[in-house]
Amino acid sequence: MDLVTLADIEAAAGRVAGTAVRTPLLPCPWAPRGPLWLKPENLQPIGAFKIRGAYNTIARMTDEQRALGVVAYSSGNHAQAVAYAAREFGIRAWIVVPEDTPRVKIDATRAHGAEVVLCAVGQRETRAYEIVEETGATLVPPFDHPDVIAGQGTIGLEIADDLPDADVVLVPVSGGGLISGVATAIKNRSPKTQVWAVEPELAADTAASLAEGRLVDWSVADRNRTIADGLRSQPSPLTFAHQQAYVDGIVTVSEDEIRAAVALLAHKANLVAEPSGAVSVAGYLFRDLPEGKAVAVISGGNVDPAMLSEILSS
Amino acid sequence: MDLVTLADIEAAAGRVAGTAVRTPLLPCPWAPRGPLWLKPENLQPIGAFKIRGAYNTIARMTDEQRALGVVAYSSGNHAQAVAYAAREFGIRAWIVVPEDTPRVKIDATRAHGAEVVLCAVGQRETRAYEIVEETGATLVPPFDHPDVIAGQGTIGLEIADDLPDADVVLVPVSGGGLISGVATAIKNRSPKTQVWAVEPELAADTAASLAEGRLVDWSVADRNRTIADGLRSQPSPLTFAHQQAYVDGIVTVSEDEIRAAVALLAHKANLVAEPSGAVSVAGYLFRDLPEGKAVAVISGGNVDPAMLSEILSS
Repeated sequence: MDLVTLADIEAAAGRVAGTAVRTPLLPCPWAPRGPLWLKPENLQPIGAFKIRGAYNTIARMTDEQRALGVVAYSSGNHAQAVAYAAREFGIRAWIVVPEDTPRVKIDATRAHGAEVVLCAVGQRETRAYEIVEETGATLVPPFDHPDVIAGQGTIGLEIADDLPDADVVLVPVSGGGLISGVATAIKNRSPKTQVWAVEPELAADTAASLAEGRLVDWSVADRNRTIADGLRSQPSPLTFAHQQAYVDGIVTVSEDEIRAAVALLAHKANLVAEPSGAVSVAGYLFRDLPEGKAVAVISGGNVDPAMLSEILSS
Repeated sequence: MDLVTLADIEAAAGRVAGTAVRTPLLPCPWAPRGPLWLKPENLQPIGAFKIRGAYNTIARMTDEQRALGVVAYSSGNHAQAVAYAAREFGIRAWIVVPEDTPRVKIDATRAHGAEVVLCAVGQRETRAYEIVEETGATLVPPFDHPDVIAGQGTIGLEIADDLPDADVVLVPVSGGGLISGVATAIKNRSPKTQVWAVEPELAADTAASLAEGRLVDWSVADRNRTIADGLRSQPSPLTFAHQQAYVDGIVTVSEDEIRAAVALLAHKANLVAEPSGAVSVAGYLFRDLPEGKAVAVISGGNVDPAMLSEILSS
């Protein structure tokens, strides 16, 4: 299987500049377990790293393809990323969401100018492909695409530029687009830096898959138990191949550890992270990882206000 | 009176680089009233912009002066800034705090390696000067010093570099070190950009002073009513002179408006701001300001966890 290359990611960096924020590495003098820097992707315009992959993918389409618009199926950060990127290009975007999606997420996607298409639960993918057939629009997948992986990889380039002697980079893992891109960039630019995945115990299909050397299936019902609602997907063969090639290790964290990381980030780093975005810091806090300079990627911050309030008051 | 110059601020930028984080401007697609960018100084290592002025001031001292250490009197962000900067230089720091200071703030200052000197309430300044006499250490004032102003001014340089066509920059005001530096940088680099101060209604001595063209005194008891505990100081003749020269206007905001801005920043920008740091956004949200591209400086994020929890749950 062809893997994304460093050159793909460097080309993506030129495309996403000016749309994705060039986030700094934040030193954490309060860090209790050795030097830590945060890569705050929760500060992107849509509150998550997904803008990088979505924008790079649309930028790689031809003018003719773009004229017909784009489609995505997602109720989360990827939906907002595709909607935001489509507006930057001045093209149409259809976002297919299940009819039980919280109103606040639908409104956020509409606010970026996208057309929200409601569908029956479990019919997102089917409905999205119907729209592709009806309109000729292009589907932008959430992670299973080389251009998406290359876009997310620009985070790894920036980390390698800002802290070339980092010892370990911690990355949340779910579908694996983020860690595939970051690990490809880091291992090609700073081979001595280790890249570790962090995953919720309750959705630890990637840990099981890496241990067995093949994709292991966890049921949707099992994966949906974690509060880290952005980490309930499973790798594709493409993202799994990148992880097998480049990822040095994986740890899992408990729900209480994820909550503690969200609270610590708010109180000490002045960052609001969603549970999915804070698992990397939970790994730093509660697991034995390679010693030395650690970087934790905070992948997103779109947490429900009620959940944030509950975590910060407990 | 000699004002700080653009050259002073440009020189300071070279000094603080590598210690102060080069914060990005964050675009806010959710902003309800015209285009808005945030300058998130709450992401500095000590959680506030004060690291810039403190570090620049110590960097400007001679080796002989530095060998004798530094003194500051503050229970807030300036204390942590001086302690952090002193440790970067490997020198001693005494921080004088009143004995009624919350334990959490004392611990934070000690964690940066400073020696905390407790004193009777109202005796901070006296005790600090005693230490200067006893030890030969240098006092680093919180705002009333050209090197402090020049350090804070590096924020304005960065804004002018990143968004040279900004129409208005909103800056919290208290002692005035921050706005003096920012306004000096902006008005010399991007003269078309307006610089507006934002102040709590309950500590509006600067608004009164600018209206009357002279320093107007408000009682400590009056100023202490605002929850924006970083904005309870008054300008000095030096910082007032900078404001008279460069600041285009000032607005005041209510306590409820400040709380609303803190909540909005947490929910939409994924940033934890202290009330003092959020007044700029309160000004953007609730006052009629020059139209066009607005930048709000988020000056700090060191809010008491209980207050943050209360604001986010109300």
